[in-house]
Amino acid sequence: MKEKEPEVPDDFERMWTDLAPVGRSARSGGYFRQPWSTPERELHEWFLEQARARDLVVTTDAMGNTVAWWGTGGRAPEGGVVTGSHLDSVRDGGAYDGPLGVVSALAALDVLRSRGVVPARPLGIGVFLEEEGSRFGLACLGSRYAAGELSWDRLRELRDPDGVALLDAVDPATAGALEADAGVSAAERLADLRRQVSVFVELHVEQGRALVDLGHAVGVASGIWPHGRWRFDFAGVADHAGTTRMEDRHDPMLTYAMTALAANKQARLAGQRATFGRLAVEPNGTNAVPSRVTAWLDARCSSDDELSALVDGIARQAQERSQRDGTTLTVTAESVSGLVSFDPDLAARLAADHEDGDWPVLPTQAGHDAGILSAAGIPTAMLFVRNPTGVSHSPAEHAETPDCLVGVSALADTLERLLG
Amino acid sequence: MKEKEPEVPDDFERMWTDLAPVGRSARSGGYFRQPWSTPERELHEWFLEQARARDLVVTTDAMGNTVAWWGTGGRAPEGGVVTGSHLDSVRDGGAYDGPLGVVSALAALDVLRSRGVVPARPLGIGVFLEEEGSRFGLACLGSRYAAGELSWDRLRELRDPDGVALLDAVDPATAGALEADAGVSAAERLADLRRQVSVFVELHVEQGRALVDLGHAVGVASGIWPHGRWRFDFAGVADHAGTTRMEDRHDPMLTYAMTALAANKQARLAGQRATFGRLAVEPNGTNAVPSRVTAWLDARCSSDDELSALVDGIARQAQERSQRDGTTLTVTAESVSGLVSFDPDLAARLAADHEDGDWPVLPTQAGHDAGILSAAGIPTAMLFVRNPTGVSHSPAEHAETPDCLVGVSALADTLERLLG
Repeated sequence: MKEKEPEVPDDFERMWTDLAPVGRSARSGGYFRQPWSTPERELHEWFLEQARARDLVVTTDAMGNTVAWWGTGGRAPEGGVVTGSHLDSVRDGGAYDGPLGVVSALAALDVLRSRGVVPARPLGIGVFLEEEGSRFGLACLGSRYAAGELSWDRLRELRDPDGVALLDAVDPATAGALEADAGVSAAERLADLRRQVSVFVELHVEQGRALVDLGHAVGVASGIWPHGRWRFDFAGVADHAGTTRMEDRHDPMLTYAMTALAANKQARLAGQRATFGRLAVEPNGTNAVPSRVTAWLDARCSSDDELSALVDGIARQAQERSQRDGTTLTVTAESVSGLVSFDPDLAARLAADHEDGDWPVLPTQAGHDAGILSAAGIPTAMLFVRNPTGVSHSPAEHAETPDCLVGVSALADTLERLLG
Repeated sequence: MKEKEPEVPDDFERMWTDLAPVGRSARSGGYFRQPWSTPERELHEWFLEQARARDLVVTTDAMGNTVAWWGTGGRAPEGGVVTGSHLDSVRDGGAYDGPLGVVSALAALDVLRSRGVVPARPLGIGVFLEEEGSRFGLACLGSRYAAGELSWDRLRELRDPDGVALLDAVDPATAGALEADAGVSAAERLADLRRQVSVFVELHVEQGRALVDLGHAVGVASGIWPHGRWRFDFAGVADHAGTTRMEDRHDPMLTYAMTALAANKQARLAGQRATFGRLAVEPNGTNAVPSRVTAWLDARCSSDDELSALVDGIARQAQERSQRDGTTLTVTAESVSGLVSFDPDLAARLAADHEDGDWPVLPTQAGHDAGILSAAGIPTAMLFVRNPTGVSHSPAEHAETPDCLVGVSALADTLERLLG
C-alpha cells in the first residue's frame, strides 16, 4: 500500500533525541520510567518545556495529569479535541509505548500550524500518569483518577512493591493537591473531564503484528478486549530445603507452578491471553521451602463472559492443586476493565477517504487511557502505528521513522477533521 | 527416655535475652541476620563481649572467622578442641539455627569451669561467617575460606543479589586483610587450620523430627548428605502480556514452572530432596511476558552418584521443555558438597556410656561448617538438640529450654572427654 508523502515537522527528530537517554538501561537498551521516579519527572519537565516553546496553556489536575492547550482564547478549556498518551514505561520497556503518542501530538500540532489551521475549539495535548501500572499495580491510574473511577479510600491504600504509599511517593505539592481534592465526588470529577474533553484521540505504537501483516503504516482501533489483573496469594509453610521430606512439605511454589502452566494452557486452547509475569517469593532463599508465593495473573479475552470464565477456571484448578499441596490460595481482583468499543462512527469516519486508501480498523488486547475515557462516555478513537517486530513491553519494541511520520500526518488529518 | 538433670549455667538465660531482639521481624517473628549487616555485626560484637567477660583470647582470620580461646597459656593456639557454630541466619529464619551452637559453647565452658576442669590443651569457641549463604549464595563461606577451599579469584567474583561485591560489602579492615592474605595458598591456609584445630564439635538445633520420633533430647550426627546449589537460567523473549498470542511467545516462566514440578516429583519418588525456593524474574511486570527467569535448585541425596543423577535428570527434563517453549536454559553449579562421614569412632565414643543411656546417631540432610572441617581432614562431630516442630529455616523453628540445657550438659561432657 502506497502511503502519501508525510510532512516532516522541524522538531520531530530533536524531540526523539531529547527523550532517547532518559531512563535507558545501558545493559538491555530498554527503558524504565516509573511514575514519580527521576526519569519520569524529567520527561514531565521536558513536556512542560515543549508546551512553553509552543505557547500552549497548561492545565494540571491534582494527580498531575497534564494537558497543554492551543486555542482556548484565554478562557478555561471547554469542549476540546484532546490527543496524547503517557510517558511512563514498564520495566525494560520500549522507546515508543506512550512517548510516540505525545511526540506525535506535539508534531501534529506543528503540522496543523504550518497548514494554517485556526482551531474553532481548543486542541489539547494530554499526558496521563502511571498508564502501565508498573509502580502501584493499577494500570491507567491517571486517567482513572480523572474519570472519577478512583475513590479516596482506594487511592490511600495504593502501595508500590516496596510498600511505599502513593501519597508518600508523590511530591508534597501533589500529595497536598490530592488531599485537597479528596472531597470532590466521582461524579463531579467525571463531569469536569467531560466538560473539558469533547473527543479524545490516542496515537500509540501497535503492540502486535496486525499492521505488518496488512501492509499498512497506520490503523484505527475498533475496541479493547476486556482484561484485568488478579493477585494469587499462595501460602504454605517455610521449612528447611534439606531436612524436610518432600511428603512433609506445604510448598506454595508447587501450587503456583501448576497454576502458571494451567493458565497458559487454558488461554492457548481458547485463543485468549493469560500470563504470570510478576512474582514475589518469601523468604526467597535457596535453602528454604517458601512460605509464600504471590503471583499476578494478567488475563484478557474477547468478551466479558469469557474473561470471567477463564479466570474462574484458572482459580478452580489452582484451588484443587492447593488442597493436594497442603497450601492455601486467595485470589484478589486488583483491576478489571470491561470490553471497550470505541465510537464506531468516529472510527469509520477517521479510517475512510484518505489519499492512500482506507486505513484498517482492528481490535487490540492492550489497555490504554483511551479505554478509560471511552468507558467514561467520551467519544474516543485510537490510531496505531506499525511495529515491525510486533513485540511490546520489551526493548525489542520498535517503530520505523517513516511510519512514525505517516502517523503524525494521520493524527494531524484526524485532528483537523475533528476541529473543523 | 529420662535425661539426667542438667547443670544450669548462670549466664544461659541472659545470653538468650541479649540475642532475642537482634534482627527480629516484628511481622513474622523470624530473624534476618545477613552477613555484614547491622544485626549480624551486633551479634559479632556481642560475641566479643562474651569472650572478654570470660577472659578468653580472641583470634580472627582475614575473613572475620573468630575463635575465643581458653587455656592457650599465652601462646598461639595449637591442637585445640574447638566447638561453635554461626550467628548469621537465612531471611526469616529461626532463633536457634547457629546461635544455639554458640550460646551452648559459651555455657558449656562455664559448666567446665564450675566443674573445676583444667584444660590440658586449648579449648576454642568459634563463630564462622555466612554459614547460610544467604547473601553471597555460597553456603559455609567462612569455613570454606578457613579450609583453603576458596580461591582469591572466586572470592573477588562473589556478588550479593544487589550486585554488591563481597570486598565492597565487608568493612575496609576486612577487605584489607583479605587482600593482604590473597597470596596465602590454599595449602598454607588449610595447614594453619589443622595446626590450630585437632578436633571440632558443632552443636546445632535439629532441622527435622528424628529426635522427636526417637524420644531423645540430644543426638550425634553420623554424616551429611551430599548437596549443592545449581542456578537455572531460563531465557526467553519479553513481550506484551495482552497483544502477544500464546502460540507466539517464548515464555521462560513456563519452562521454569514445569521444571519446578518435575524436580519435586523426581526427588519425591526417590526419597531425596529438590527445592526451588529462590527466584528472580525479569522484568517482573504484570503486563509483560518475562524475558528471563533465574531459579536456584537446592538438591540433596544420600549418595554422590544419586545427587548427580537427580540434577542431571531435572536438567534434562528442563532442556526438553525449553525446546518446546522456544526458550533457552543454562545450568551452573554454584556449590556442590560431597558426602560427609563424620569420624565414626568419635561419634560412637561421644554417643556411648551416658547416665541416661546411649544417644542416637543419625545422618542429616543439612550442610554445616562441621561438614567443611570434616572434609578438610579434621576429626569432627556434631550434636543435635531436639526441635519439637521439626521445622527449620522458618520462624516456627524451636527448641525447648530444658532440651537446650541437656544440650549444654552434653556438649560440656563431650568437651571434657576430648580435653582429657
